[in-house]
Amino acid sequence: MTSQWQKFREYFYFDNELGIQVDVSRSGFPDTYLDDMEIRLQDMYCQIQALEQGAVANPDEQRMVGHYWLSDPELAPQPEIGAAIKDTLRRILYFAQDVHAGTICGQKGRPFRNVIIVGIGGSSLGPRFVSEALGNKGDPCSLYFIDNTDPDGMDRIFAELDAKADATLTIVISKSGGTVETRNGMEEVRHFYVSRGLDFSRHAVSITQPGSRLDQIRIKEDWLDAFPVWEWVGGRTSVLSAVGLLPLALQGIDICGLLDGAKKCNSLTRNTDTKSNPAALTALAWYVLTGGKGGQQMVILPYKDRLELFPKYLQQLIMESLGKEKDLDGNIVHQGITVLGNKGTSDQHSYIQQLLDGPSNFFVTFIEVLKDRDGDSILIAEESTSGDYLQAFLLGTRNALSNKGRKSITLTVRDLSPVTIGVLIALYERTVSMYAQLVHVNAYHQPAVEMAKKGAQEMIQLKNLALRVLRACKTGGLTVEEIALEIEADGSVVDREMLYKILKHLEANRGNRIISQKSGSEFEALYQVASDQQ
Amino acid sequence: MTSQWQKFREYFYFDNELGIQVDVSRSGFPDTYLDDMEIRLQDMYCQIQALEQGAVANPDEQRMVGHYWLSDPELAPQPEIGAAIKDTLRRILYFAQDVHAGTICGQKGRPFRNVIIVGIGGSSLGPRFVSEALGNKGDPCSLYFIDNTDPDGMDRIFAELDAKADATLTIVISKSGGTVETRNGMEEVRHFYVSRGLDFSRHAVSITQPGSRLDQIRIKEDWLDAFPVWEWVGGRTSVLSAVGLLPLALQGIDICGLLDGAKKCNSLTRNTDTKSNPAALTALAWYVLTGGKGGQQMVILPYKDRLELFPKYLQQLIMESLGKEKDLDGNIVHQGITVLGNKGTSDQHSYIQQLLDGPSNFFVTFIEVLKDRDGDSILIAEESTSGDYLQAFLLGTRNALSNKGRKSITLTVRDLSPVTIGVLIALYERTVSMYAQLVHVNAYHQPAVEMAKKGAQEMIQLKNLALRVLRACKTGGLTVEEIALEIEADGSVVDREMLYKILKHLEANRGNRIISQKSGSEFEALYQVASDQQ
Repeated sequence: MTSQWQKFREYFYFDNELGIQVDVSRSGFPDTYLDDMEIRLQDMYCQIQALEQGAVANPDEQRMVGHYWLSDPELAPQPEIGAAIKDTLRRILYFAQDVHAGTICGQKGRPFRNVIIVGIGGSSLGPRFVSEALGNKGDPCSLYFIDNTDPDGMDRIFAELDAKADATLTIVISKSGGTVETRNGMEEVRHFYVSRGLDFSRHAVSITQPGSRLDQIRIKEDWLDAFPVWEWVGGRTSVLSAVGLLPLALQGIDICGLLDGAKKCNSLTRNTDTKSNPAALTALAWYVLTGGKGGQQMVILPYKDRLELFPKYLQQLIMESLGKEKDLDGNIVHQGITVLGNKGTSDQHSYIQQLLDGPSNFFVTFIEVLKDRDGDSILIAEESTSGDYLQAFLLGTRNALSNKGRKSITLTVRDLSPVTIGVLIALYERTVSMYAQLVHVNAYHQPAVEMAKKGAQEMIQLKNLALRVLRACKTGGLTVEEIALEIEADGSVVDREMLYKILKHLEANRGNRIISQKSGSEFEALYQVASDQQ
Repeated sequence: MTSQWQKFREYFYFDNELGIQVDVSRSGFPDTYLDDMEIRLQDMYCQIQALEQGAVANPDEQRMVGHYWLSDPELAPQPEIGAAIKDTLRRILYFAQDVHAGTICGQKGRPFRNVIIVGIGGSSLGPRFVSEALGNKGDPCSLYFIDNTDPDGMDRIFAELDAKADATLTIVISKSGGTVETRNGMEEVRHFYVSRGLDFSRHAVSITQPGSRLDQIRIKEDWLDAFPVWEWVGGRTSVLSAVGLLPLALQGIDICGLLDGAKKCNSLTRNTDTKSNPAALTALAWYVLTGGKGGQQMVILPYKDRLELFPKYLQQLIMESLGKEKDLDGNIVHQGITVLGNKGTSDQHSYIQQLLDGPSNFFVTFIEVLKDRDGDSILIAEESTSGDYLQAFLLGTRNALSNKGRKSITLTVRDLSPVTIGVLIALYERTVSMYAQLVHVNAYHQPAVEMAKKGAQEMIQLKNLALRVLRACKTGGLTVEEIALEIEADGSVVDREMLYKILKHLEANRGNRIISQKSGSEFEALYQVASDQQ
């Protein structure tokens, strides 16, 4: 008991001004660990400092990594960058003000009360997490996220906004300006407006790199406005650029508070005394807990409903940054930490059974919010409020895990304000940068993502070839094998399994007019284009 | 290519009536695997059959496991059980009908259009998943889930329903009738009604085991109605009992379709020819993929927005069932499969980078829905709809993973109807039962969950002791150490770290009137009860 209390006090980080505490005393640091790691830590601080000062920290793509400048433009290595950040923030604040005042409004004059955000991955998870964490009934605008190319998913949002199209603003977000899912979402949203007699361009704003394909479209169509995102901001760290700030400002969230929290946290995490640096302590805990190798799972358990999307946000930030085949010297390392979790206490009734009794292949990060609610609570039982129980379950579970030898980190914030959310964002961005330095990987690229995109392109081509063959067919239908052979006439090789799956999908969607007739086994069915009578 | 196409056809399971396909050809079965496993598989079928016929399949708790009977009451081993299932279904349908017709309504006569469901874990995840998968704008009732003891989380729901309390029905769900979070939620909801001049009992329905503490409360207070859940239904497999059926019927979902899908799927998965049994094929794939040992991660990627909660539902079903310290013979085995995932394509922009390049410690289950949407789609680019791209991304990602040696299972359903959702539920319930047989663990208990609850109880007691000491204190405040020593006067031992954390929480919530004064270090601060002036 006493020894854990001593260890707790020794490693306990707190900042009473920002209302943040970090406890790594249950992560299994050996006693001399900080001393043992001191040289590597000082090297890490130097690298991080160089990165902040504009060194090329993403060597593959020859890019600077500048998300730290977003909350503190004075730090930007070139004055034009600082000026662009400040100018964009100013324009976002004015734009939101004008929308709230109704001076920017829908084509028929209705004020915008709904905002569709079309974006995926980094262009969705950040704003969605903050919107959920800080939103309240009565916010000036409600946000709707289209973060997929699922037709039915979009239809549900369109149904919700059916009678409110003219009171709905759409923000299309793609850093590269060429994200396929986002392009599809944009075209579906355009159709939504047009089929209601409205002009899409009078309800649309873009966030993209100047000069991108998306930027060209919005110029040509004369959209309402456009905000930039820059090369030196990665998607997964873009929430404090226009990507997050514009939607959140429209929702009515104090984005200056967010930026202020991030700026102050970034300042704390520049401290080169590790015990006084919450990000360095956390990165070091990850390093101890995973042995600096991939494979250990990170379970994130915020005990607060508003933070339910935080684990999902961190899942992207951490897995996409750290999940790498090669280290910076080109060695094969297969690094990566799997992130999962939803919220406590709910998850205690889901998978705590496995955490306590199953494989010891994980560690938990508990996130505690000290303030229970606005206003006072009723006493329910045992002289306790529902918030007292929330804390008791967190502490009780943490102890139960400790007793089973399962490690944990505990992060405490005083309340959920824009400032604390800004702190949380900056804290984990920094922790990921530091951990990446420790394990020597490039945290700022995502080389493998292209593979999946390229595979999709081939499927679209195969589908089109199959449709061409079917449309040209004059007989009573063709089997998978026959269609494949027709396509292969040009010398290509067709994957029959893919072709089969594509045909099943075409058949299930009536607009394609593809039908099949059973003939022997499932794989000998005959596919054809339906005639007008069918 | 050809060999994968042959393997695909060899293991491909499909049922065109139910519109379901299961493809385990990419899970790495050795060629003779089905033959090698045949004796164990036949033993597994016998055990499952015994379980369905009412054997005590949960030996620790000496209980039958009967969730299979819910969709097919004729199978119940005792006629009273079958009759109770049928009677409850009938009562649910009538109750929902009466609510929709307005003959059951709020105290002031307003029809119920909103339903709060108070329940956690198994009493929340199932109904929430199905509600999200099948709900539509215009449903007769909207569901709101209170699945935590977070005061602020509840306040957000109360704010939403502020002016609609009398049009809001509350269902309190706890199988044991003693779940602390659910009790807290119930009392907070009671306060919500009472503070608006309404009588809670005239808006409340219970779902619990007859005779439980919750049942006694509802009898004493004369609630609107009560529905049973039985000892032989586990929380994580209770969605087809009143736990799921009542909320879903109120929402307007065709619960008979759900039950029908489950019944038909249960019938398919009784087949003792493994190639004709989609659950056995899936369980066998899990077994190959994890080597029958815990630790391999299961990534679930449904390419459909409506299925975004399905991985979370499966996380509970699978992890709580399989995450076990001991096998059925008492050997220490630390079994368990970690489940994570949200949806495709969104997750491709989040952590596919790690899946392709990071540690090879997982397999993916792709879930495909063939029907894109109601109605036709516009062509966006490359002669393709947004739904064509959705499928192309699934297939492309699956290929990219295969090329990297990462294994996968693909499950395809024709559309998302009540019947198919019933099929999905039953398919995974059965797969978990079968896999548990293969690895020889009890899938129907959760012995470790009590540990976390007990820990919480101790924290509540420590908080009360601390408050007592502080209230009795006449001096200018006490340090953590001084409070601990006071409590220890009775011979107990106080964990100072816990005490410190409890004091911080008390201080952050003004209703407790606890304040602190800095005096030296953070750990020497003086805590006291604020005087009336403070």
